[in-house]
Amino acid sequence: MTVKENLRPGGRSARVQASVHKAVRELLAEMSRTEVTIPLIAGKAGVTPSTIYRRWGDLQQLLADVAVDRLRPDMQPIDAGSGKADLEAWAEQYAEEMSSGPGREMIRDVLAAQAGANACKCAEFTRQQIGLIAERAKARGEAFPDVERVMDQVVAPIMYRILFGDVPDAARVRDLVARVMDAAL
Amino acid sequence: MTVKENLRPGGRSARVQASVHKAVRELLAEMSRTEVTIPLIAGKAGVTPSTIYRRWGDLQQLLADVAVDRLRPDMQPIDAGSGKADLEAWAEQYAEEMSSGPGREMIRDVLAAQAGANACKCAEFTRQQIGLIAERAKARGEAFPDVERVMDQVVAPIMYRILFGDVPDAARVRDLVARVMDAAL
Repeated sequence: MTVKENLRPGGRSARVQASVHKAVRELLAEMSRTEVTIPLIAGKAGVTPSTIYRRWGDLQQLLADVAVDRLRPDMQPIDAGSGKADLEAWAEQYAEEMSSGPGREMIRDVLAAQAGANACKCAEFTRQQIGLIAERAKARGEAFPDVERVMDQVVAPIMYRILFGDVPDAARVRDLVARVMDAAL
Repeated sequence: MTVKENLRPGGRSARVQASVHKAVRELLAEMSRTEVTIPLIAGKAGVTPSTIYRRWGDLQQLLADVAVDRLRPDMQPIDAGSGKADLEAWAEQYAEEMSSGPGREMIRDVLAAQAGANACKCAEFTRQQIGLIAERAKARGEAFPDVERVMDQVVAPIMYRILFGDVPDAARVRDLVARVMDAAL
């Protein structure tokens, strides 16, 4: 789905996308995902099914596209006073959100789509958040680990355990953060 | 899917399962996954569709069940002479297999099923392999990290990067192994 990147805000294409995304979100709130179909979405969005097929290819791609949009961070990481405290607060919230029912469904939708572009975008959002925490730490003159190391040692274990059925508790998350921070000193 | 755990080998139930799994594997070799349907599988396996629905619930669960079976390790980790060499050889093979086309499809099938039991089973297979490497290292009198730490610092980053579109190369895998081994010393 590279479509949405080049939309002129307010243009026809952007309006169609907004309306279709909204229809999907509303239907997902009303019924189980297995009941959602492209004709239903089209009806609710006021577009023809063929508009949706032309633009998204299939239902799975559309669901992935909507899921990525919802996974886009809507705030800067909290400033908790130090790099370690920032990373801890961020990681605990990340683990909590991603392991929630809606969080898991969004991850599943993103990963289920055949093309990997949406999954990459998700990891990119995460990388940017860690990058912001790292910049803030450096501006304070603190040591902070490399962003890729935080991806490997904090983000990846949280996501792996959520996906493979062993949701990490706050103590485990803090332990992951402590280990990567200690290594950076 | 707890069904298959309690099968009497050679019993009717085990024969049905073996035949259905075989039909799925053959169909997946012949056609794309989106073309595989329960009636097709039933026809090939010589059972009625309702047998499949009763036993697996839906196509996604059946695909996940077959995928887990294929993800079950079919060999002991290679003995390369030391814990570090064993873990390196194992991790490189794991990264290679899981990032291959069939590997990704199997992971996607396992994760797509609503119930998480199959995903847990996959992580359990991996944990057992690492456990074998750890025992061998200890029998040789070597220091070896805790299995959960290897899951967090080697397995999780490999899987995260494969899923989120940034397949780790051999150098990155060796780097992950070196880091966790150094910390264990």
